[in-house]
Amino acid sequence: MERINEARQALLDVSVNLKTEEIPVEEAYGRVAAEHVIAGTAVPAFRRSAYDGYAIRSQDIREASRENPVTLKVTERIPAGSIGKHPVTEGTAARIMTGAKVPVGADTVVKHEDTWFTDTQVRFFMPASGGNVVEPGEDVEQGICLMEPGKVIGAADAAVMAGQGMSRVRVFRKPEVGIISTGSELVRRGKQLPEGMVYDTNPLLLAGYMRSYGMMPREWGIVPDETKMLADSIGRALAVHDMVITTGGVSAGDFDYVPKAVERIGARILFHGLPFKPGGAMLAAVKDGKVILGLSGNPGAAAVGMLYVGLPYMKKLCGRSSVYLTKAQAVLSEPFGKSSRGIRILRGSARIQEGRLMFDQMKNQRNGAVWSVMDCSLLGEVPAGNAGLLAGETIDVYFL
Amino acid sequence: MERINEARQALLDVSVNLKTEEIPVEEAYGRVAAEHVIAGTAVPAFRRSAYDGYAIRSQDIREASRENPVTLKVTERIPAGSIGKHPVTEGTAARIMTGAKVPVGADTVVKHEDTWFTDTQVRFFMPASGGNVVEPGEDVEQGICLMEPGKVIGAADAAVMAGQGMSRVRVFRKPEVGIISTGSELVRRGKQLPEGMVYDTNPLLLAGYMRSYGMMPREWGIVPDETKMLADSIGRALAVHDMVITTGGVSAGDFDYVPKAVERIGARILFHGLPFKPGGAMLAAVKDGKVILGLSGNPGAAAVGMLYVGLPYMKKLCGRSSVYLTKAQAVLSEPFGKSSRGIRILRGSARIQEGRLMFDQMKNQRNGAVWSVMDCSLLGEVPAGNAGLLAGETIDVYFL
Repeated sequence: MERINEARQALLDVSVNLKTEEIPVEEAYGRVAAEHVIAGTAVPAFRRSAYDGYAIRSQDIREASRENPVTLKVTERIPAGSIGKHPVTEGTAARIMTGAKVPVGADTVVKHEDTWFTDTQVRFFMPASGGNVVEPGEDVEQGICLMEPGKVIGAADAAVMAGQGMSRVRVFRKPEVGIISTGSELVRRGKQLPEGMVYDTNPLLLAGYMRSYGMMPREWGIVPDETKMLADSIGRALAVHDMVITTGGVSAGDFDYVPKAVERIGARILFHGLPFKPGGAMLAAVKDGKVILGLSGNPGAAAVGMLYVGLPYMKKLCGRSSVYLTKAQAVLSEPFGKSSRGIRILRGSARIQEGRLMFDQMKNQRNGAVWSVMDCSLLGEVPAGNAGLLAGETIDVYFL
Repeated sequence: MERINEARQALLDVSVNLKTEEIPVEEAYGRVAAEHVIAGTAVPAFRRSAYDGYAIRSQDIREASRENPVTLKVTERIPAGSIGKHPVTEGTAARIMTGAKVPVGADTVVKHEDTWFTDTQVRFFMPASGGNVVEPGEDVEQGICLMEPGKVIGAADAAVMAGQGMSRVRVFRKPEVGIISTGSELVRRGKQLPEGMVYDTNPLLLAGYMRSYGMMPREWGIVPDETKMLADSIGRALAVHDMVITTGGVSAGDFDYVPKAVERIGARILFHGLPFKPGGAMLAAVKDGKVILGLSGNPGAAAVGMLYVGLPYMKKLCGRSSVYLTKAQAVLSEPFGKSSRGIRILRGSARIQEGRLMFDQMKNQRNGAVWSVMDCSLLGEVPAGNAGLLAGETIDVYFL
């Protein structure tokens, strides 16, 4: 665990150069706030009626009862958005609509369904004091911080900003991540497939996760197994993007070009090889303040490597203040038969059963199969030195 | 509950006219599939080596041991993407890379780290049979259904399609939902705020949720409290959008114009008023096969009404095959003090504590406050006729 934590931290220690942009609040959903939003205005800004009813002085109806109702004179009607013309004085009431400003003199609104009324008179059958009036600042106090930088803007955040009259907000730019596939056997979708070749799948797999975190994946194409070409591609991608991810060519075989390519461009290696499966055959390097993440060529392994180790840094690159994966304990719904010397990461999904978090493993955990990450929303962590797990055992899981 | 279920069903019974479009698979993440995707090609299409190593005939090394290693002659090297020139015959082996096609004659790949080798010879120290060869179709069997219409396309789905060589996929168009705010007290963000008026927040609140489900919210602006103007707006929005949502003007007060406006345009009312709080003061109507959902003017109530009752229909309108909210049981982390005659819907968020699903209520449950839905990802259902709930009690919750 320690080496994995250190690897995550080594990535997080790379300082990021975050760029911002100002966008309309209606486009802010899902973006990351880049500024403090302070409430310039209290909400409501005035004493607001919470219901359709009658604005009154509570002392006028304090003796009211079913036997001895109190009748007040209706002086005016105040629709929402209008200002009453008269203060409410002894013996009078104002018909008032939800959201309208409670007129001076009134301290209470009685819902119209609790009264008997005509256009000119309203009758009360019980006392009421102070109810149904929303005081200024009850929703939003003036001067409070509505949003901190680094927060992912949700539906309510955008609405809260609109409630302040804001039409634009400063957010972090979506980081662009170049994805380079390495492998002479790879063919891009849409093309003919020669014998012995396979269609490249990793870029779209990784891109989907990137999009879900608010990053802009950029497919850089397929580079054959050749150090110089790969080094050139990484260098060029790094020059225009905020981060570069490669898949394939990172393990110890003699066709593994990524470490050599990274060396060739003069990047500093942060780590190479981590003690977990699948995906531990990964590499991280940094050049000009930008990270290169070299992942396995196996789809399952590439996804696990990126998410399990790289995601905190990638969230930081998005400007998010909360970067770590949420950890929890979950119950295995099915056994995991394989014994494992090192840490093993299972791909699965979350389900709540009788109030408990269950971990449903993907049926196919083979690293080479894209299926092994189908609808994967949870990583399960099988500790090192394990002889296999039974259904019903509890493991640590990470929400993606 | 029954009336609420009937209301959801009445909406779901409105037949939808789904439109489709073909898009590049790299843009498909998060979209809803509109076609069956059938595997035209097995993956892998050929017998693939799972590792860098040596392709051999297992019978050649069945006697191999540390004491009596077996040495084979290396006839060639097969990089991934290349086809071997020679069959593997008795006494020979081919150096093979991960992903390459296993040559004719070989039935096993031995990882190179388990051998001793030179460029021309390779030595084995133990028997091996049938390992490390991925058979055709092990990842994807030819002819199987890879994706059903109605599925939300995830990262792995897009990758699976790419693995078939697909560069485009047919998806459902994102439905456009017109959002009309009613209320003479409302002012659009970015404008000056006159006394007694408030900034309109509901469209952005509802729009955020819509975006998260893959809909296209269209702000139709603010309509004053006037039946004819509102009817005109609803009619025009309905003509160009797939659905119309109004907020405000739906309860029983005398400034409640939505029911009258809906009647005026000749829409058929599906329901008006449901027995839950907040948000039960809602209305649904249908005209020309399109739904009008009239929600409360209170942000919290509007959001609850839309999500608790309207969401299944809205998901159907997106083309999704799975439309109901996921229900589970959760433990209240704090008491809920209010007694309630009808069903009460709490806004909250999910947290896993010691493997159990906890329901954390929003601090501010006042319907009028946008805050009451801040980061709300879970609706909690307090049953009718309840005197309040203690911390630790279990309630039904719905994931949003």
